[in-house]
Amino acid sequence: MSELFEVEQYDAAGRLGRLEVPRAGTTIQTPALLPVVNPHVQTVPPAELESQFGAEILITNSYVLHGSDELREPALEGGLHDLLDFSGAIMTDSGSFQLSEYGEIDVTTEEILEFQREIGSDIGTPIDIPTPPDVPREQAAEEQRTTQERIELAETVDTGEMLVTAPIQGSTHLDIRQRAAREAYGTDLDLFPIGAMVPLMNEYRFDDLVHVVAAAKRGLGEDAPVHLFGAGHPMMFALAAAMGCDLFDSAAYALYARDGRYLTVRGTEHLDELEHFPCECSVCLSHTPEELRQAGETERHRLLAEHNLAVSFGEIRRVRQAIRGGNLLELVDARARGHPAMLDGYRTLLHYADQLRRTDPVAKDAFFYVSGESARRPEVRRHHERLGRLDAPDRLRLSVGSPGEDGWRLVAPFGPVPPALSDVYPLTAARPDSLERPAYAAAVRGVNRLAAANPDTAITVVHDGWPEDVLASLPGDVSIRLLGGE
Amino acid sequence: MSELFEVEQYDAAGRLGRLEVPRAGTTIQTPALLPVVNPHVQTVPPAELESQFGAEILITNSYVLHGSDELREPALEGGLHDLLDFSGAIMTDSGSFQLSEYGEIDVTTEEILEFQREIGSDIGTPIDIPTPPDVPREQAAEEQRTTQERIELAETVDTGEMLVTAPIQGSTHLDIRQRAAREAYGTDLDLFPIGAMVPLMNEYRFDDLVHVVAAAKRGLGEDAPVHLFGAGHPMMFALAAAMGCDLFDSAAYALYARDGRYLTVRGTEHLDELEHFPCECSVCLSHTPEELRQAGETERHRLLAEHNLAVSFGEIRRVRQAIRGGNLLELVDARARGHPAMLDGYRTLLHYADQLRRTDPVAKDAFFYVSGESARRPEVRRHHERLGRLDAPDRLRLSVGSPGEDGWRLVAPFGPVPPALSDVYPLTAARPDSLERPAYAAAVRGVNRLAAANPDTAITVVHDGWPEDVLASLPGDVSIRLLGGE
Ligand SMILES: [Mg+2]
Ligand SMILES: [Mg+2]
Ligand SMILES: [Zn+2]
Ligand SMILES: [Zn+2]
Repeated sequence: MSELFEVEQYDAAGRLGRLEVPRAGTTIQTPALLPVVNPHVQTVPPAELESQFGAEILITNSYVLHGSDELREPALEGGLHDLLDFSGAIMTDSGSFQLSEYGEIDVTTEEILEFQREIGSDIGTPIDIPTPPDVPREQAAEEQRTTQERIELAETVDTGEMLVTAPIQGSTHLDIRQRAAREAYGTDLDLFPIGAMVPLMNEYRFDDLVHVVAAAKRGLGEDAPVHLFGAGHPMMFALAAAMGCDLFDSAAYALYARDGRYLTVRGTEHLDELEHFPCECSVCLSHTPEELRQAGETERHRLLAEHNLAVSFGEIRRVRQAIRGGNLLELVDARARGHPAMLDGYRTLLHYADQLRRTDPVAKDAFFYVSGESARRPEVRRHHERLGRLDAPDRLRLSVGSPGEDGWRLVAPFGPVPPALSDVYPLTAARPDSLERPAYAAAVRGVNRLAAANPDTAITVVHDGWPEDVLASLPGDVSIRLLGGE
Repeated sequence: MSELFEVEQYDAAGRLGRLEVPRAGTTIQTPALLPVVNPHVQTVPPAELESQFGAEILITNSYVLHGSDELREPALEGGLHDLLDFSGAIMTDSGSFQLSEYGEIDVTTEEILEFQREIGSDIGTPIDIPTPPDVPREQAAEEQRTTQERIELAETVDTGEMLVTAPIQGSTHLDIRQRAAREAYGTDLDLFPIGAMVPLMNEYRFDDLVHVVAAAKRGLGEDAPVHLFGAGHPMMFALAAAMGCDLFDSAAYALYARDGRYLTVRGTEHLDELEHFPCECSVCLSHTPEELRQAGETERHRLLAEHNLAVSFGEIRRVRQAIRGGNLLELVDARARGHPAMLDGYRTLLHYADQLRRTDPVAKDAFFYVSGESARRPEVRRHHERLGRLDAPDRLRLSVGSPGEDGWRLVAPFGPVPPALSDVYPLTAARPDSLERPAYAAAVRGVNRLAAANPDTAITVVHDGWPEDVLASLPGDVSIRLLGGE
């Protein structure tokens, strides 16, 4: 690890960062989206990716170039940037995908890294073993060892200024993923792709995806730039960014376009089933779905790819702005309503609230309580931690109404709010008129933390109709009153 | 009411429709957005609203033209369409807003309707009394009577082919709103604006807004085109459309732009606080917030207004496509996560599930369970109704697992699923791995409906850890078993 990656701001485990790419002489903003460019078929020319969509970095496949009679020499002679007509940073993949698809490839890690350096790649990749989900633990462990050997081999190759990635494998075995990450982070390689995630994404296993990313993150330092390899659907950018993924790559924009599939932040639509384009991009503003269906194939593919890129880069900017504004989790909450599997992913994210809390800023602009899930946010956990360290007076009235001179407010989902913290984030949260059970349960947990830290305090809780069985989990010596019925 | 409005498809109470505007010689698609054009200051030229953003109809203020030394004669001589350079349909407002702001205006309903007809308006408006929220009931009732008198007066004016609106007032008194709607619908006027809603929107009282719209809708026939007057923020289009509003008008696109405010479907941002544009429109793709801050005032206002229009029209298309695809409530659910007040609005919408159910289609493509709120959707209510009419066998096992040969599946939030309905919407719903209490409670209500209709049936419920107190509301003679523990 060098000091190429600088985190500017966090929200949950998501971060705005700057990744220096020395060989490209450039620094890219993260979270970033890398369009995948097929050297043979360019649905949208790389120059347009840069000028129209603001792509600072793209990814292409060095193995395809290496094996191409047509492109190998031009790549070696003129370099990748000339070949693709792209002046930003270029990352190259190594053939691992081909290895996993076809069982063998005809280059070694040393050869392909040399080749990547020779064609002018800015970020090269060794040949790792992309172990699919759900394989036996022994297979995952053995293949991870091979991947780690390749990573360590890559360390020894003279790659000059080119950055080199250290892929993290381990299938769906979380301890192996975590160890893989720790071992990869222990090398002096530069970028950390979490690999072989495409099957999970294709099967909408967003909960498993979150488990795997969380495990990998636990093995990495905070200065490690993380690439969620193969993640090209904008519906999941916010979720993955909130876990701390910095780089995404999209082959989907072009592949989906060729298949008539239309990306949205809420899922995938098919052109054949659209009557109105649910989007504000210039393609969707100036065409109807019927016009695109009637268009020639090349034009249709191009326009759909442009829409797919617009919405993908739009979502990346939305994620960046959400981190800047401290409302990334509200964005994830909205995205969770695109599909039940996204809701599972969001709930799994909140399962890691304590892991997110480590980097989540203490102060943000506003906390919006927008769902039962909001009660499980890291901010609530942090407040409960704080309650466990607070000194309470001998007698303490906690009330959802006016707490009186010596009382504290009782605010679901946070719990007791000492007067000194009343105007402090997140206790200034905007809340709906009615809350649900998880909010009351969280507030009661907050009372319990305070009570445990202050065993001699006589606590009275004044509620306004909280569920009986939620109140029942208060300690037996807490007095319970109904607001107005005192 | 004439037969100018044709509903093509419903989702909840939302509908895709076609509104014929005879004087414009055109038929507009609904839900529709009418940009408000100020005859004196055109941030975006009407011709561009049409060519760039696809506006089929706009709204301008006839009272402003009537009082303008500069524009009155040109409007009378060349007509509104020439004056504004817009070939679509033009609706005109009457000065009611000025009346409410300044307490008096210098025209009568007859005069202003005549004037609207003379300047070539396609849809004219009488001078109603926009009673604000929360006024005493007597004031609301009296002002509604005056509005109704004006509406009835408007009926007698010779307005030729011009359509005329019949505004619905009544403040936040729901019975008055409902009566106002019934009386307006009883005239032969054509379009039904729900008026004086701007204060509710400005104060984010989306729950009250839903209550008022629901009341007005109860007083109107299904063939009444409904205009949610003053609704120009895209964050609420899906919610309002789901209640059955067909027309929206936006002054916000231009007013907000002049104030540096940037519309999104999740709320309002201020240009000064944006580092990244969270949007895919062409303005946001080709500029950074910093560039816009540095731009000249005129250019900045114009570009912000163009963004605001792109996102507003984009959301209208998204709403249309959601109705077409039968997933409008999923869109509303996502929008509810923009602000706690939007969540209140959504929950209030679901409070009217029975009202929505009257028009909600029996079959749609897919039901996505994406939140605790999903358990309260009209589809769940309809299934419960159906259960109350079903014949059950003498002994019936309802199981969350395999129901066995003679059993039925038990599926939260729906409840019992007879085999014949297993593959029928909404019982094919996609659900997350874990559900919450409202889903189990709804399923138990379904069991209770079936049990009540089949008092002689011996029912066994097999659950997988549903909350005890939820199961406790099953009838006493229902046997309860834990799956696997049988
Ligand atoms: Mg190096
Ligand atoms: Mg008429
Ligand atoms: Zn688009
Ligand atoms: Zn925009």
